[in-house]
Amino acid sequence: MTTITPALASTCTPSELAARHGRLLSAAARAVTTRAAFSAFADRAPSGPQGDEATARFEALLETPLNLPGHRGTVTLQTDEISPWTRLPLGVSYPRAEAAALIDNAQRAQATLSSLSIDERAGLCVEMIERMFADNVVLGLAAMHTTGQGRGMSQSGSGTNALDRGLEAVAAAWQVLSRVPSNATWEQTFGAELVALEKTYRIVPMGPALVVACASFPAWNVYPAVFANLMAGNPVIVKPHPSSVLQMALAVSIMRETLTDAGCAADAVQLAVDSAAKPVTSVLATHPAMRIVDFTGSARYGSWVEENARQARVYTETSGLNSVVLDSFSDTDAAFRAIAGAVSLFSAQMCTAPQNIYIPESGVVTPDGILSADEVEQGLVAAVEAIAESPRRAAAVLGAIQSDRTLDEIAALTTTLRAQANEQALGQVQVQVLSEPRSWPAPDFADARTSTPLIARVGLDNENLFTHECFGPVVFLIRVPDARTALKRAANDAATHGAITAFLYSTDDNLIDSAEDAFAAAGASLTINVTGAMPINFSAAFSDFHVSGLNPAGTATLTDDSFVAGRFRVVQSRRPLRPSHN
Amino acid sequence: MTTITPALASTCTPSELAARHGRLLSAAARAVTTRAAFSAFADRAPSGPQGDEATARFEALLETPLNLPGHRGTVTLQTDEISPWTRLPLGVSYPRAEAAALIDNAQRAQATLSSLSIDERAGLCVEMIERMFADNVVLGLAAMHTTGQGRGMSQSGSGTNALDRGLEAVAAAWQVLSRVPSNATWEQTFGAELVALEKTYRIVPMGPALVVACASFPAWNVYPAVFANLMAGNPVIVKPHPSSVLQMALAVSIMRETLTDAGCAADAVQLAVDSAAKPVTSVLATHPAMRIVDFTGSARYGSWVEENARQARVYTETSGLNSVVLDSFSDTDAAFRAIAGAVSLFSAQMCTAPQNIYIPESGVVTPDGILSADEVEQGLVAAVEAIAESPRRAAAVLGAIQSDRTLDEIAALTTTLRAQANEQALGQVQVQVLSEPRSWPAPDFADARTSTPLIARVGLDNENLFTHECFGPVVFLIRVPDARTALKRAANDAATHGAITAFLYSTDDNLIDSAEDAFAAAGASLTINVTGAMPINFSAAFSDFHVSGLNPAGTATLTDDSFVAGRFRVVQSRRPLRPSHN
Repeated sequence: MTTITPALASTCTPSELAARHGRLLSAAARAVTTRAAFSAFADRAPSGPQGDEATARFEALLETPLNLPGHRGTVTLQTDEISPWTRLPLGVSYPRAEAAALIDNAQRAQATLSSLSIDERAGLCVEMIERMFADNVVLGLAAMHTTGQGRGMSQSGSGTNALDRGLEAVAAAWQVLSRVPSNATWEQTFGAELVALEKTYRIVPMGPALVVACASFPAWNVYPAVFANLMAGNPVIVKPHPSSVLQMALAVSIMRETLTDAGCAADAVQLAVDSAAKPVTSVLATHPAMRIVDFTGSARYGSWVEENARQARVYTETSGLNSVVLDSFSDTDAAFRAIAGAVSLFSAQMCTAPQNIYIPESGVVTPDGILSADEVEQGLVAAVEAIAESPRRAAAVLGAIQSDRTLDEIAALTTTLRAQANEQALGQVQVQVLSEPRSWPAPDFADARTSTPLIARVGLDNENLFTHECFGPVVFLIRVPDARTALKRAANDAATHGAITAFLYSTDDNLIDSAEDAFAAAGASLTINVTGAMPINFSAAFSDFHVSGLNPAGTATLTDDSFVAGRFRVVQSRRPLRPSHN
Repeated sequence: MTTITPALASTCTPSELAARHGRLLSAAARAVTTRAAFSAFADRAPSGPQGDEATARFEALLETPLNLPGHRGTVTLQTDEISPWTRLPLGVSYPRAEAAALIDNAQRAQATLSSLSIDERAGLCVEMIERMFADNVVLGLAAMHTTGQGRGMSQSGSGTNALDRGLEAVAAAWQVLSRVPSNATWEQTFGAELVALEKTYRIVPMGPALVVACASFPAWNVYPAVFANLMAGNPVIVKPHPSSVLQMALAVSIMRETLTDAGCAADAVQLAVDSAAKPVTSVLATHPAMRIVDFTGSARYGSWVEENARQARVYTETSGLNSVVLDSFSDTDAAFRAIAGAVSLFSAQMCTAPQNIYIPESGVVTPDGILSADEVEQGLVAAVEAIAESPRRAAAVLGAIQSDRTLDEIAALTTTLRAQANEQALGQVQVQVLSEPRSWPAPDFADARTSTPLIARVGLDNENLFTHECFGPVVFLIRVPDARTALKRAANDAATHGAITAFLYSTDDNLIDSAEDAFAAAGASLTINVTGAMPINFSAAFSDFHVSGLNPAGTATLTDDSFVAGRFRVVQSRRPLRPSHN
């Protein structure tokens, strides 16, 4: 058995933790309110192992059972977990427990959370976040070798940025919960009589909560859901994807250790592990005692959960059709680089990656004149291909492909597209594969599962191809008569099929206004004319609302009041005012 | 055609209304935050018709089509609407429109709300409330002759108190919506580059909302739902019960008039009328474009709506088993009067009325010694029967019975109880009808549909009788070994079958603590040792949270953040910071 970094803090009561982290919590809450830029981790290095020490620590975790003291279950080797970089099994074993046992434990642990004040819960959650940050590099290596993310992203996107989103949820929940007064004195005249009552209001948790993670980016959705639940007093069962367990298991281990150090029941956070062959999510999600389910994954299974987990409140993030509408550029090369970066980042295995890029037949207006549709295609393809040219850059930007299935689907789609290219009907856009997906050599990882993006030109007649999410590095360059047609089509697809993000490049203020209206109605967050160092599909914790709830891409908005308000209820009691309370 | 009182204010823009009502809105919002006592209508008389003038105005509404300018539909006589007091048909005709037409109109009217600021929407909603208050007596007579409420309750419970609950929803929604910033400037360094973005956040309504009213107390739930929706920008279709349309039709008429006077589309509020023979609620509730449903009514139909209106967010208030646990009295007669009042008020056709009263076999401790269980029974029966002894008091307190079906069910239950009384098994509590339901003569209304409460003694073995809601004036005096057994049973039934309120009389602080814990977990709001002028089941707007969402009695809490937060979403756009925004 191995453990990771020892605790940041020594044993500490929840009220001490509340005091210790009060200032950070207040700053985070201010950011949630103003939505200005904020990060808890800017200019801070993790206090835990880094570099070779972190690598050694990570490697010590492999081929061994993970240490989760007191966790229910039979320790079982996780054979589904294979690094996308090395293609070797991680060989870690985790405890596996029956759904009913996990839920029993969760129900028993609920009192440990209920007994804490809202400030104490926040202190406990922030301490968990700080301890995860201390171990950011080790957790990042676990993310890297399960999701396929590059080393940098595994520590930022799956590390500090995900922890910031978790802290955002703590702060948002703290605000919502703190608004409920704990008591009131109430006086009203009925006829000649003054009735004076003292009232108390109690926050009551809903009960056990399940958090189902996706394989490619678990931390980003798990942390907000876990912390919103813990703040509301709901015990949590984290259910990672069977091929991507380790980072979440380490996170659960740190959370349990924090609970134990604070004198709370560790089972307020548990881990549910299953295998691809014998999945357990459906049993957990539909258990009569499960009151909340946060689900990240496929639209199809998300719908199944919503349809069947009727006893629970269900929050989802599934999939969508993120689009780019091109009209005019103020800096052509910068725009090409920005779009190429977004479709390449982690090989588009992110919910914010664009898939459908609309190119007007009339071309795109630039400072140097009109770029024809063909020229725009060429520019985009060249910008995307440039990324893969340097293997080191490719490793950082594209990362590896999490699942064999993604590669299989891209290969099948390439075959379909080639066939359609030969079946072109008169007057239709010539379907054409503009950039074939191919493996590129990852430095240090000779066997890495990699692929350059598949880029294909299609027309509006080929909607059977582009009106569903093709998970992974797939880009459709869709020919449209003009930008307004593109806008209408993209917004309509977002509303009908779901979308989280949308992108527009235009110097026309009227078109920008129309796009803001159209994507607001469709519920896709719109990024306009952004180029430069920030990935255009970067979603900033504390500032960018992620998932609107207005289209089929999901209902879980990171983080607004509705993400928090349904996770607890308020119950009151009242009695005649006692003298001491006057 | 007749119209009711002319508009309070002359034509007024939404921004003028926002300014005019800003102070009241702020006061209401403060009350929502502190939950101290507040009413917008204390010490104010309605400016509209009163006394004989109001009666004349009400009578002029009868036997004629209601004037709803511009409302879609075929004007149709409402034959289901029969006064419980006179047993005569009201003879009012209302426009009936197809569900699809109403929803089309609602969708078209949505823009009228979206174009308003949050403050303007609040101004518009408060103006509607003020206009309804001006017509409080006429609206009250409409409530009286559809629901069967007494004259006083029709102007308070269905009038000012319901309007206060509406204002509470406006204020709560105003707070939640106002917390979303409309824009932010965001600056963060990526590598060497400072990225500066301007972000805008837009509140996007969900879409058409249906508000389904119950027959016996429509205003109380309709106003909060309507105003929470209008604040969020959702156009509303109010669907009254076919036997209880008039008050809601008048309310809709006033809301539409206010919209028109403010230059907004009247169809932001519409009326859906159907008949008992050809109901339309299911079609409306499950229409693909209907995004929100607020339902008040039976648990069975509420479940149907939740099961089938999958395209909508559904808020419910259905039914439950409200209980009284007796342990000890500090003032025996005051306690008997308080309980008798609660079971008698509007003949228990209220969601807060207690049905199950637990009496310990060991008796109840009082300052004058122990009162035996039989003596407690006798005291309660006498206190209830005293109310019906004066017909004028009975008319004010008991009111009339809204539906023939309620009387039929009480008669059938009485027969069942008599049969069980004869089948008593050895060692079981002797089931006994302690007070037969009988009609009492209502002053001025010789044909009024009236009934005294049916009071019966039962034992815990008779749970088939008392573990479902018997709508109307039915009281079970349940013999239990002791108060702790009663508490456990009552809380368990609340959790399993639903409950909104619970009541405890005890001088034992340990028992009170246990009751607060048990009913908090069960989600029933607890009233302890309250006697005197305030009906113990009175629920105060701005202060008392109504319906917890923790048990089957419903999910719509008046009014907490979760009642508001799901009715709108936020969508953002972002672009490089422009100089003028720096």
